[in-house]
Amino acid sequence: MAVEWSNLGPEVLVRLDRGPRGTLATQLQEELRAAIRSGRLEPGERLPSSRAMARELSVSRGLVQSSYEQLEAEGYLLATTGSGTRVTMAAASPDQSGIAAAAAAVEIDFAPGRPDLSSFPMRDWLWACGEVSRSASARDAGYPDPRGLIQLRQVVAAYARRVRGSDTTADHIVICNGFTQGAGLTLAALVAQGVRQVAVEDPGHLDMAELVRRAGLEPIPVPVDRNGLDVDALRATEASAVIVTPAHQTPTGVVLTSRRRQALLEWAAHRQAVVIEDDYDSEFRYDKKPVGSLQGVAAGRVVSIGSVSKSLGPTLRLGWIIAPPHLAPAIAQAKYRADRGSPGLDQLVLSRLMESGRFDRHLRRMRGVYAQRRRSLMLALSAYAPAIDLTGMAAGFHAVANLPDHVNEIQLVAMAAERSVGLQGLGRYRFNGSSGPAGIVFGFGDLTVSAIDRGIARISDLLEGS
Amino acid sequence: MAVEWSNLGPEVLVRLDRGPRGTLATQLQEELRAAIRSGRLEPGERLPSSRAMARELSVSRGLVQSSYEQLEAEGYLLATTGSGTRVTMAAASPDQSGIAAAAAAVEIDFAPGRPDLSSFPMRDWLWACGEVSRSASARDAGYPDPRGLIQLRQVVAAYARRVRGSDTTADHIVICNGFTQGAGLTLAALVAQGVRQVAVEDPGHLDMAELVRRAGLEPIPVPVDRNGLDVDALRATEASAVIVTPAHQTPTGVVLTSRRRQALLEWAAHRQAVVIEDDYDSEFRYDKKPVGSLQGVAAGRVVSIGSVSKSLGPTLRLGWIIAPPHLAPAIAQAKYRADRGSPGLDQLVLSRLMESGRFDRHLRRMRGVYAQRRRSLMLALSAYAPAIDLTGMAAGFHAVANLPDHVNEIQLVAMAAERSVGLQGLGRYRFNGSSGPAGIVFGFGDLTVSAIDRGIARISDLLEGS
Repeated sequence: MAVEWSNLGPEVLVRLDRGPRGTLATQLQEELRAAIRSGRLEPGERLPSSRAMARELSVSRGLVQSSYEQLEAEGYLLATTGSGTRVTMAAASPDQSGIAAAAAAVEIDFAPGRPDLSSFPMRDWLWACGEVSRSASARDAGYPDPRGLIQLRQVVAAYARRVRGSDTTADHIVICNGFTQGAGLTLAALVAQGVRQVAVEDPGHLDMAELVRRAGLEPIPVPVDRNGLDVDALRATEASAVIVTPAHQTPTGVVLTSRRRQALLEWAAHRQAVVIEDDYDSEFRYDKKPVGSLQGVAAGRVVSIGSVSKSLGPTLRLGWIIAPPHLAPAIAQAKYRADRGSPGLDQLVLSRLMESGRFDRHLRRMRGVYAQRRRSLMLALSAYAPAIDLTGMAAGFHAVANLPDHVNEIQLVAMAAERSVGLQGLGRYRFNGSSGPAGIVFGFGDLTVSAIDRGIARISDLLEGS
Repeated sequence: MAVEWSNLGPEVLVRLDRGPRGTLATQLQEELRAAIRSGRLEPGERLPSSRAMARELSVSRGLVQSSYEQLEAEGYLLATTGSGTRVTMAAASPDQSGIAAAAAAVEIDFAPGRPDLSSFPMRDWLWACGEVSRSASARDAGYPDPRGLIQLRQVVAAYARRVRGSDTTADHIVICNGFTQGAGLTLAALVAQGVRQVAVEDPGHLDMAELVRRAGLEPIPVPVDRNGLDVDALRATEASAVIVTPAHQTPTGVVLTSRRRQALLEWAAHRQAVVIEDDYDSEFRYDKKPVGSLQGVAAGRVVSIGSVSKSLGPTLRLGWIIAPPHLAPAIAQAKYRADRGSPGLDQLVLSRLMESGRFDRHLRRMRGVYAQRRRSLMLALSAYAPAIDLTGMAAGFHAVANLPDHVNEIQLVAMAAERSVGLQGLGRYRFNGSSGPAGIVFGFGDLTVSAIDRGIARISDLLEGS
């Protein structure tokens, strides 16, 4: 006998078989996994309550609960108080067939976090490859230093001191494969130091919470308001580490105020806690000088993780961890265990790019490109949807359009998709689901000026709810 | 009051302070960590028993035991029944200052596992970089498919089918950063499937046992004899997965016999177990055709992990996991969580190298180079130390010199080091320490014909114990 469930519409289907196909719990887990992998259940999507699901499938609520818990442990689902259970951001990605199909239908995609891919400095990269091929020795073909090649660590240390106001040397830097790995290695080192709970920003990247959980730690959501992370709320938790985006918060785009920065570092000093700074797009600031890295102020308490994913391109998978002296060896250890070190030739290529001045030149050029796109987004919104308030634009390449009270964020995203415009609501970044003001995160890094204009024109009536 | 301990010679020093410097247990752990990191305690080195250590330091044995356990949990130490507690292979590596200093003193290093670094095909690599830079699109600058780019997965699938007799398609391949990461991702996927114990070869790379433990699993050592892994002994364990090097065992160099291969696969089928095949140097075989991959015989039960670390160079940090269909999605998931995918441009470069025929040409050339070096090792041993029996030379670039009964392996290694010749004894690959016949693992991949000859001449009296 088979029971089918299709409450989320015909595309989501759970089929339980009271026959020889394993226990009902196993079947339910398999069906949900398959639905998530294939993209039928999308990242951020909320599942029905265990009660509703149990009723639909005519099984016990305990069976559904235990299945949800299993998938949560595996990282497919994320349960949050007050907001039910959702598909994690990462869950569907490896099997991209579904995602690619969905992306094909989106003509203008305002997804944040993407730099202008067509500007990747391919010629500079090839030039640096040539330089490396001429100067490399046999030794450079061997296993790289697991901490990263000394050449690159020195260049990165100098860059971070100059551009980000960091307080570090090559000895306290570990080269990694981008932010995700950097955070994973740092969390592994913190576990060994006895840390148990790690605060994360809410709203924030739900991937962070998953990273924390995967490391065997408990993520504690702490609210973000228009001044950045609420440090009073952080103080009220038991967390002894926190992951923050101080220079340009993901997703709200707010900059942590100087008073909050100070309070955060006082908290860290007082609690002997560690601040993990995601320094992801701080190179791009428009109105003023970039906000310096927190790490520069409290080198003993801050781990600052940077990468070239926004400045050059995510394809390179290269980043760095600037660690306090007491954590650097444990992080290097974790890197050795993870993959024995990042690719050596790539590290040589990047260090040539950075020390040759070509990296800086590229950044200067890109600041101009992004400033134009940012201006285009502001102009388009003020022309087509003047009621919309845009915030979080001081740096990076995303901002938040705050929606009028009568506009439903989830409906807006769905209706924009029908017009081939890809939008992300603030809700998918909230632990608490739809509670909190509605808003749309507009990424403009990988969209041309004209695409931005056309995209906003096409959905302006939806934004204003008219 | 300070107690000093220097039982292992003046270079190892534990200093406990009955003052304000934290508990004695914390101090002991810190001192041991520091000794390991700095290289004062070397990988493979055995620590005194907890009883002896406690006596020397005038502390309780329980305190020493709990400190050893803590460092074991952190991966610095490995406790094995019957052989006490040793420093893990990986432990000292990230802080390489000590290692580099030690390496400088070694003039001729027979360390196994290193290909000829001076033969890295730098010109081919640069050619492929040029090809990629001309043909890449903006999309190639973005986040790569976490499973690996489809171009590379297709090329690798075709290569593995052709050269290794594999039975796979691009859909069941995940690109990773070399064997260590590949095994880590596979073990993470097995944990989610309920695996608890993983068998590892003894003697074998002790790194494997550490990898298994780090994944939250229990490593179970299973003996290797001259026919390879003892499958009867494996059958007697509770393990539901095993890591093997069937084509050329590390460190003994034996090839798993066809009867044993069959028995191993029968065990896997019967127990619904998974065989993780480390297919690390099988491209290089001298007397006969390479032994095909186990994966080709039982694609549903074998995970085969390959890399270009031996065929091109470890610097590239690129490898592949050929997975059974039921494991491939979970491994891809683990890869996404670890670092969101391997570098995209590198994957394009490698796929160009492989499909252009330059990779094959390089392998053909290297087979000739290694065959000469292998011959040089055999000739030197038969000329200078004719009593020594050399085994495990059918493939790869290491072999084992079996020592006469009256030669002490540890003393031999130490005395060779005094003559600036680097050797590794079989003991450092044994869970059971020095039990088992004495032998030296001779790597010849990264030594010239003349260095091999001079090295053997310099230590021949030690080898024969004369």
